[in-house]
Amino acid sequence: MKLASLKTGGRDGTLIVVNRELTHWVEATEIAATLQQAIENWSNSAPRLNALSQQLNDDTSNARRLDFTALASPLPRAYEFLDGSAYLPHVERVRRARGSEVPASFYDDPLMYQATSAGFLGPRDAVPVVSEEYGIDFESEVVVVTDDVPMAVGAEAAADHIQLIGLVNDVSLRNLIPPELAKGFGFLQSKPRSALSPVLVTPDELGDAWRDNKVHLPLRSWLNGERFGAPEAGVDMQFDFARLVAHAARTRPLSAGTIIGSGTVANEDESLGASCLAERRMLEIIANGKPQTPFMSFGDTIRIEMLDTESRSIFGAIEQVIEAYGD
Amino acid sequence: MKLASLKTGGRDGTLIVVNRELTHWVEATEIAATLQQAIENWSNSAPRLNALSQQLNDDTSNARRLDFTALASPLPRAYEFLDGSAYLPHVERVRRARGSEVPASFYDDPLMYQATSAGFLGPRDAVPVVSEEYGIDFESEVVVVTDDVPMAVGAEAAADHIQLIGLVNDVSLRNLIPPELAKGFGFLQSKPRSALSPVLVTPDELGDAWRDNKVHLPLRSWLNGERFGAPEAGVDMQFDFARLVAHAARTRPLSAGTIIGSGTVANEDESLGASCLAERRMLEIIANGKPQTPFMSFGDTIRIEMLDTESRSIFGAIEQVIEAYGD
Repeated sequence: MKLASLKTGGRDGTLIVVNRELTHWVEATEIAATLQQAIENWSNSAPRLNALSQQLNDDTSNARRLDFTALASPLPRAYEFLDGSAYLPHVERVRRARGSEVPASFYDDPLMYQATSAGFLGPRDAVPVVSEEYGIDFESEVVVVTDDVPMAVGAEAAADHIQLIGLVNDVSLRNLIPPELAKGFGFLQSKPRSALSPVLVTPDELGDAWRDNKVHLPLRSWLNGERFGAPEAGVDMQFDFARLVAHAARTRPLSAGTIIGSGTVANEDESLGASCLAERRMLEIIANGKPQTPFMSFGDTIRIEMLDTESRSIFGAIEQVIEAYGD
Repeated sequence: MKLASLKTGGRDGTLIVVNRELTHWVEATEIAATLQQAIENWSNSAPRLNALSQQLNDDTSNARRLDFTALASPLPRAYEFLDGSAYLPHVERVRRARGSEVPASFYDDPLMYQATSAGFLGPRDAVPVVSEEYGIDFESEVVVVTDDVPMAVGAEAAADHIQLIGLVNDVSLRNLIPPELAKGFGFLQSKPRSALSPVLVTPDELGDAWRDNKVHLPLRSWLNGERFGAPEAGVDMQFDFARLVAHAARTRPLSAGTIIGSGTVANEDESLGASCLAERRMLEIIANGKPQTPFMSFGDTIRIEMLDTESRSIFGAIEQVIEAYGD
């Protein structure tokens, strides 16, 4: 099934079920008022939401037409967003552009940081930024959402807690990153609010494309309407989502509705393109000694989408414009 | 007024008002079911909660006796916890013990990291830890809670968004910190769930002790029943809470219920003692070349409390025992 949230209804939106084709929806508030409530009581709500989803997929005559701009983030806010960096080609290029090596430990100990989860932009909302000098970038990633995960869970058991899958535009302010990371405490100002995809889906919606706790499909990004990259999300992912969940839960339980991100999808095969400007700029630095592609300007747009093998959109497209804040 | 949450009532507890002496309480659910709900609608709920608080302070005959063990964290979970490190003597000692200097920028750019907020331990709950080898430590800090804060707010305007004040035991797993920070993405496994004080209070409860957006009282810690330290929270705090809120909000709005921490309270005057074991161990390293005081073991207890000038507890005491997880 595919779940989303309307902007109406308060800080957590209003839970709706969307049909497979992403054309129609019905309210699910008799089952749970919000997606957060549904995931907190998943064993009870999931079968009922699934029944509603099947009805909707069979017959949309009583359903409403989907307007993507009316959607909030499926989780308008969450209690925890832990973002990994599981595609090592990305990490290798970052390091190579700096002239340094990837530590051996990075191949068996996931990189992951605590990201802001207090508010997600809607999938068609503008991204407000104070200044273009911040070095505005997108990052196209896959995310999963868990139910309650016990502390110190193993990777195998962690897999059973992955209930929903989606995409994220992990907005990054590149020029704020070096001074922030130099302080040693990780990202904060350099990682403002992100946007999730219009819908989150249960793993069964992906069919064979969900296996080994990875999504085996290309993640497509378009910058200002031009194809930017479509690297394979199932390739070069050093740590699968079960492993990432277990890493996140090593010293604490994860509460229902926790979002775990894959990090920027990146492949060793450079011909498939990248999932963020920083990556393209690093390839330019490696090739030519300096970057040619600028970061984003006010008015620039980004579109992030994943299609199934028959070219149907799975999660709907994230489509955002960069907007000057405070003008 | 003083606000707390009972463990009963669901994941966000049940909102209660506690009297000034911390002996009695009344339910506040007719005003807001939970503290999270109250802070989301603060301009409406605060005056009504305040009226209830005045009634309770005048007459406890219809109130219930307070049992601290029945309390959840006042915010059992929150959408954002951003923890600063505003006491530079602490940072200076960490660096000195390592033989390095504090960068000049640290004196005008706050250190702050994104901490887990998905669940707080109750003020009398045990701290579950898998292994003593993790290097278990407490950190006694002051926190503030904001209502909705606009992005890019200045420090002066930020001050008006500080609605509640409390304490936190920011549990730290010291032996996990060096490898985690070496990866460059900040704290995650090394900073598990923390515990807030039994009650959060409005700034007026502190009287003159709340000024310049700082709390001007000693923060007292006892380890296994012995006085450990009582540094002055109003002294050597390089960045006041308004400044910390503004730092947190530079590139994103803060949503209602955001918790901002001061970092370990530490003074240049070593005679007042410390607010964490790491600090004492650093002083030992600086004095003797190696630490003598061990980190915490299973069964060890920590008590954190702040008293007013007449020795009355303001926030109630955080009292926790370290417990082996999974036994």
